[in-house]
Amino acid sequence: MRIEHDSLGAVEIPDNVWWGPQTERSRHNFTTGPKMPMAVIRSLIQVKLAAALVNGKTGSISHPISSAIQQAANQLLALSDDELAQSFPLRVYQTGSGTQTNMNVNEVLAHLASQHTDEPVLPNDHVNCGQSSNDTFPTAMHMAGYTAGQKVITALNDLIDQFEAKQVAYMHTVKLGRTHLQDATPLTFGQEVSGWVATLQQDVDTLRALLPQLLALPLGGTAVGTGLNTTPEQTAQMVQTIAKLTDTPFTSMPNKFHGLAAHSELTVNHGALKTLATDLLKIANDIRFLASGPRGGYGELTIPANEPGSSIMPGKVNPTQAEALTMIATRVLGNDVTISVANSQGNFEMNVYKPVIIASFLESCELLAGGMTQFTHLLVQGLTANEVRMRELVDNSLMLVTALSPHIGYEASAHIAQAAQKNGSSLKAAAIASGKVTEAQYDEWVDPLTLCNL
Amino acid sequence: MRIEHDSLGAVEIPDNVWWGPQTERSRHNFTTGPKMPMAVIRSLIQVKLAAALVNGKTGSISHPISSAIQQAANQLLALSDDELAQSFPLRVYQTGSGTQTNMNVNEVLAHLASQHTDEPVLPNDHVNCGQSSNDTFPTAMHMAGYTAGQKVITALNDLIDQFEAKQVAYMHTVKLGRTHLQDATPLTFGQEVSGWVATLQQDVDTLRALLPQLLALPLGGTAVGTGLNTTPEQTAQMVQTIAKLTDTPFTSMPNKFHGLAAHSELTVNHGALKTLATDLLKIANDIRFLASGPRGGYGELTIPANEPGSSIMPGKVNPTQAEALTMIATRVLGNDVTISVANSQGNFEMNVYKPVIIASFLESCELLAGGMTQFTHLLVQGLTANEVRMRELVDNSLMLVTALSPHIGYEASAHIAQAAQKNGSSLKAAAIASGKVTEAQYDEWVDPLTLCNL
Amino acid sequence: MRIEHDSLGAVEIPDNVWWGPQTERSRHNFTTGPKMPMAVIRSLIQVKLAAALVNGKTGSISHPISSAIQQAANQLLALSDDELAQSFPLRVYQTGSGTQTNMNVNEVLAHLASQHTDEPVLPNDHVNCGQSSNDTFPTAMHMAGYTAGQKVITALNDLIDQFEAKQVAYMHTVKLGRTHLQDATPLTFGQEVSGWVATLQQDVDTLRALLPQLLALPLGGTAVGTGLNTTPEQTAQMVQTIAKLTDTPFTSMPNKFHGLAAHSELTVNHGALKTLATDLLKIANDIRFLASGPRGGYGELTIPANEPGSSIMPGKVNPTQAEALTMIATRVLGNDVTISVANSQGNFEMNVYKPVIIASFLESCELLAGGMTQFTHLLVQGLTANEVRMRELVDNSLMLVTALSPHIGYEASAHIAQAAQKNGSSLKAAAIASGKVTEAQYDEWVDPLTLCNL
Amino acid sequence: MRIEHDSLGAVEIPDNVWWGPQTERSRHNFTTGPKMPMAVIRSLIQVKLAAALVNGKTGSISHPISSAIQQAANQLLALSDDELAQSFPLRVYQTGSGTQTNMNVNEVLAHLASQHTDEPVLPNDHVNCGQSSNDTFPTAMHMAGYTAGQKVITALNDLIDQFEAKQVAYMHTVKLGRTHLQDATPLTFGQEVSGWVATLQQDVDTLRALLPQLLALPLGGTAVGTGLNTTPEQTAQMVQTIAKLTDTPFTSMPNKFHGLAAHSELTVNHGALKTLATDLLKIANDIRFLASGPRGGYGELTIPANEPGSSIMPGKVNPTQAEALTMIATRVLGNDVTISVANSQGNFEMNVYKPVIIASFLESCELLAGGMTQFTHLLVQGLTANEVRMRELVDNSLMLVTALSPHIGYEASAHIAQAAQKNGSSLKAAAIASGKVTEAQYDEWVDPLTLCNL
Repeated sequence: MRIEHDSLGAVEIPDNVWWGPQTERSRHNFTTGPKMPMAVIRSLIQVKLAAALVNGKTGSISHPISSAIQQAANQLLALSDDELAQSFPLRVYQTGSGTQTNMNVNEVLAHLASQHTDEPVLPNDHVNCGQSSNDTFPTAMHMAGYTAGQKVITALNDLIDQFEAKQVAYMHTVKLGRTHLQDATPLTFGQEVSGWVATLQQDVDTLRALLPQLLALPLGGTAVGTGLNTTPEQTAQMVQTIAKLTDTPFTSMPNKFHGLAAHSELTVNHGALKTLATDLLKIANDIRFLASGPRGGYGELTIPANEPGSSIMPGKVNPTQAEALTMIATRVLGNDVTISVANSQGNFEMNVYKPVIIASFLESCELLAGGMTQFTHLLVQGLTANEVRMRELVDNSLMLVTALSPHIGYEASAHIAQAAQKNGSSLKAAAIASGKVTEAQYDEWVDPLTLCNL
Repeated sequence: MRIEHDSLGAVEIPDNVWWGPQTERSRHNFTTGPKMPMAVIRSLIQVKLAAALVNGKTGSISHPISSAIQQAANQLLALSDDELAQSFPLRVYQTGSGTQTNMNVNEVLAHLASQHTDEPVLPNDHVNCGQSSNDTFPTAMHMAGYTAGQKVITALNDLIDQFEAKQVAYMHTVKLGRTHLQDATPLTFGQEVSGWVATLQQDVDTLRALLPQLLALPLGGTAVGTGLNTTPEQTAQMVQTIAKLTDTPFTSMPNKFHGLAAHSELTVNHGALKTLATDLLKIANDIRFLASGPRGGYGELTIPANEPGSSIMPGKVNPTQAEALTMIATRVLGNDVTISVANSQGNFEMNVYKPVIIASFLESCELLAGGMTQFTHLLVQGLTANEVRMRELVDNSLMLVTALSPHIGYEASAHIAQAAQKNGSSLKAAAIASGKVTEAQYDEWVDPLTLCNL
Repeated sequence: MRIEHDSLGAVEIPDNVWWGPQTERSRHNFTTGPKMPMAVIRSLIQVKLAAALVNGKTGSISHPISSAIQQAANQLLALSDDELAQSFPLRVYQTGSGTQTNMNVNEVLAHLASQHTDEPVLPNDHVNCGQSSNDTFPTAMHMAGYTAGQKVITALNDLIDQFEAKQVAYMHTVKLGRTHLQDATPLTFGQEVSGWVATLQQDVDTLRALLPQLLALPLGGTAVGTGLNTTPEQTAQMVQTIAKLTDTPFTSMPNKFHGLAAHSELTVNHGALKTLATDLLKIANDIRFLASGPRGGYGELTIPANEPGSSIMPGKVNPTQAEALTMIATRVLGNDVTISVANSQGNFEMNVYKPVIIASFLESCELLAGGMTQFTHLLVQGLTANEVRMRELVDNSLMLVTALSPHIGYEASAHIAQAAQKNGSSLKAAAIASGKVTEAQYDEWVDPLTLCNL
Repeated sequence: MRIEHDSLGAVEIPDNVWWGPQTERSRHNFTTGPKMPMAVIRSLIQVKLAAALVNGKTGSISHPISSAIQQAANQLLALSDDELAQSFPLRVYQTGSGTQTNMNVNEVLAHLASQHTDEPVLPNDHVNCGQSSNDTFPTAMHMAGYTAGQKVITALNDLIDQFEAKQVAYMHTVKLGRTHLQDATPLTFGQEVSGWVATLQQDVDTLRALLPQLLALPLGGTAVGTGLNTTPEQTAQMVQTIAKLTDTPFTSMPNKFHGLAAHSELTVNHGALKTLATDLLKIANDIRFLASGPRGGYGELTIPANEPGSSIMPGKVNPTQAEALTMIATRVLGNDVTISVANSQGNFEMNVYKPVIIASFLESCELLAGGMTQFTHLLVQGLTANEVRMRELVDNSLMLVTALSPHIGYEASAHIAQAAQKNGSSLKAAAIASGKVTEAQYDEWVDPLTLCNL
């Protein structure tokens, strides 16, 4: 154990770790829940790297110290997540500004940088120079959130691609439509899939429209948004450096007071993720219901058998990827409430729910991206339509009667459908028996594929 | 118009209304959203009636005034909701303590009471004597909430009764079980319904365990919980009077500070209502899926045709009562978030989200009670099982194979089921073809009703 | 009573009403919850007007009937909401497609149109010609939703305008910053308000980006999205007519399958409304906390006294408009869950939670628009800063010490602040006593307004 | 790598692991999100241990195999969580029945048991004998959930104890009451704390009333609830064995159909956890606001300085434990939505959202228990009242005027308070100046401690 000091006094720290007294205090004071996501840590390190570079240039810190901090930052960024995690032991449920994680990054960088220069490198005065947790942490939130959101878009596009392939393949495969879960007029399976594609395409478009809100970084606001101890010029240079380092068009948020106290950008973007989740829940439900069976369900689709389905029922195959995805959807719905409530609870110059907001946001992104990718490759890709079953259900259906309506009126058509259902006869037989339609008319008016209006 | 004064000055009030200046102010200052539910108004009037009686006895107000207020209160309580509403025009979205509604009640009672006595009757000094909005309004919340919760229990018991009748009627009707939406081992429809009954019975039991929390009334806390300007004896008498008036075993809440600042009782009770809503959503979904068809769905149940189902598809019948009930379930899920967030936002001696909490709570109760009653009488009561269809699906099923497992092992059983599915053969044929089972063994081991373990 | 028939048989209807048998059935079958909002009814009437016009042109219905329906529609549109409501008695919690409300509109129009022509006008064959509830109802949802959303934007812009006026007025009024509720470095009240403006401005921008999603109308999809019994040309003309009638750039949604089965547009737009609600909750909290007092709170702001605050505490003034607005925020948070869950529950060609989705969406819009308008005019407009109090708190503050940090380092600065707090001395006295700073340096480095970096 | 087979074919498995082919399949098919909590794994192992014991006694499996499985189970139960985790690599987001985790347990036990006997031990036929994932997994959910809930109760009781100590210590320390954030009549700090205690005590009582619902285990339902391949006697013995092993009064759930298809017990219990979370949010907010300052806030409380508060503002101390706890509250609010929606989505004989339900439930328990424990020991324990400040605010307050109301009426009292506020005078001066009260009367009527009605 070694002893280090912070402004509250002395702290014993294990000899072999890179962090300092504030990290050590937090590690003992906050022992519940998951660790801060590495995506946030990496973003903070990139902020510190940019700060060191700019602070070196402007003379706010000495050249050797600037250079040593940059070296240390690059050293950390080269580590794997698992390696990095060794030095960042703090929890999500800590101080609500993320100050302790910001200090963890400051301390680790100061510790490592001190090995690269003769001058002592201090966590606050040098690594954190011209910054505050209050602006660096929300900056890291936007950086990590933007990247995670992009991964959702990528996975969503893959899913859309697979659905589009099915849409094309089955564009002329007629099947029964269902509204209120009851038999309705026919459509093709390709048309049905086109609806899923349109829904998901809109979700992509929405995310593409909203995610750029996260490009605006509150960096430069420092303690309360005024930018005390820094300047707009330094901020501009830091943001440019970050943009270059990450190859992402980040900009300086015009109003920093907003950036420290409100996280509407993450909240409204999560609203779009949540909408996607609800759409995925609907689509995954459709697929698993249409695949229900093999003999006692709708039975219109066949899905891949990826694993034995049951520990007790031999030979059972279950829509497990759909189940994982729909469980994910419920989690994202919950995260939306967490983030929304958290965003509502800012006070004055600060929102102190930052860690739970970004951790929940990143969890939703990871689950959605990962869940969709599995779903795409292990379920959708191998999904096939049981065309014989589809055709059989259409031929049996009574709702083709709708095609008679413009010719003989709604009431007469309704009576034909009711008679067929009552007698268990075919619609055609009932139509002819009604005397309102001849066989030739029926065949002309009631062609399932024609009814699909392709 | 007439002119009246309150502590802020003069207010013009329409000549023909019973309310006074504070109601008139609020009516103009708060013009958005629904009116305060009459159930809250009635409860407040009962509180005022009890207060007048006790205050008269203890001499806090004169006998003539006490008697006049009681007369006025009884006059109001005799009105229908529509008539009552004429004098209580204020909105839910007003001051968060419900002060304006409390004053509305005080003013109307003072106005009416003044007609029954020569002494001037004042809203604050007489009608509100020894009370504060801060204790009367949450008292009215508990009173109205308890009554509304009882109606949910009544409607839920009716639904359970109807399901129990179905359970008995179909206890030996074998049908296919389904897990993961896939064919599973059989059970009887009566057993399936027994699961619904057990779920709902537990919801009743939970409500019965939790609703009595609402019997504790915060009355007597007055402004901040200390009971300033009243005494524990007066409070005890008022609560006893209320209990007698309403024929409900209300008690005086031991800690009034809690009663003004936290609404955990309503929150946790709404958690039980929300759980009920999720259970109803599940059961209503089961019914409408099992009734899906008539020819292209599970088709195991027939539900009453209460109205034409479609404006375009003649002869269509839809599970409309299930739809209304499941929409209600989503609303109750939303109300739970509203109430929970509202409960979390108390500050110091007061929670100022009282009106939205009670309005949302009462809405959930009304929707659940009303929705279940309709569902019971217009759907469940007329629901019948299609026993032929049920039997056909069981006979076709491959999952009866599970019964072979204890005899020939899981692996061999799985291969039989897979072979049957692959060849489109019956399970029995595949079993015998496997050489692991004789026909006699199969017939002995695989009897659907026996498998149900009735 | 008169007797009319629908496809299920005869129904007795009160003589004096305009509706027909399906409305009458629904009125008795669904008796719980609020009525369908008039905004939806009006939109449906506009759809019917457009349909009659186009169907008349294309010959799908006769000219006299087309003209009679148009006349009837205009007759209805001229009514006030209260008058209109007399003919539209159905509830939100009805069939999940809104079919019964669509039929209500069809029946009332057929009834009225029959008075304008000798030919019998039928609800399904004529008024509903080439349409289905399944496409007209979600069309009306988008129409009503778009209009309601615009009203939120208008009210929000008003609020922003008022805040901008305060921002300008108080741009140089220095006050204490607060982070974690603890004293922090100073900013001006104008800067603080600028943060609120920036937050709300982003909410406007988001709504403006997302609301146009509602301009796409699913009309023309008819029963399941294929457009059976209509044509793309008719649809195009109907949408153009609607756009002209409403003076709003509505377009025909490219994929109708999506439009019937998913309501992602309303869901994601409500996500933006919910984000706005959370931002308003934060801002309203800031204002009421800063106005807390008059003598025992932050006391930095004075808000208008619109009504007496307490029924028991004489002279009390409360932030009632803030309370109404924050209660509204909790309701919108709940509605977001309702709408999201409802959107996730579509099945196959249809989502049958349409009425609860649009009713909840419209409620949020109405509450937000109304609540913000009141808040703007009855609270924000009259809000003033207590500049003396603000200055006093800044002068007393220890966090000005941050300005010393770049000169003497973080550690030494921390010890000065700690010493001042321990001894109850001023920061300046402690700074000079520390020997690290001269009086001249202190005065140069620590000027509150300079620290605000205006 | 070694090769093993399941009913779908051959699978390559790393040589050094204990699991089998189904675990290996799942490990590759489901790669997103956190691992299944070890509390669930441990409970499943206990179920298997009980099953082996009972199956051995009844002869369903041989004695050597029974004994080997028991040995293996005890071997696993002796491991630490970290060691155990090496053999249980599967994710929460897998099949919705938890089948793959059940098979993971079956496979690991079969693998280990095979080392203790010469007979081959099979995962399905022996370890899973007479069971299904469908009953063992929800059994494990209840077992793990009950234990976790007890930990919440323990932590909550600790918190209550600490608050009770403060309640006693400060029972006669008068302070300002606040309603609507505005100055109100006085109470003592002990009384204020008593409100927190009463709120939390009710939360404990509710949990104690509801948690026993989790004692009922669905074990014995097997595949669909009928108990195929087991008997009620075996089930009874297994449950008794589990009760003994865990020293917890578990019972056999009377209706197994309910137990597989609905998770209302966990849902309604989480409703109680969520209510607790909202109450904690309120109380933590009260504490941090009352501790706001040190010089620009309410300043009535002092909380321990556990770590430096700011990376940029030297000497700052923040209410970090309150922040962690309130972030936890938002997470629990989100988890409630996740669990509720998941519970609503059961279909027919099964709910396939089991893993996300139990993982979210356990997360809430862990966060609440851990968060409260830290909050108790690092914040509440060291919390002190600033009695001088409290007294000063009371003495300055205008709301003591309420005590005059019964003597001189509400209107006259209001005018005194308004005059004092307008003139910046003391209440006493204004009262005497009004001519309505003499100095002697004022002193008699307006004694702060007397007003508290202790």
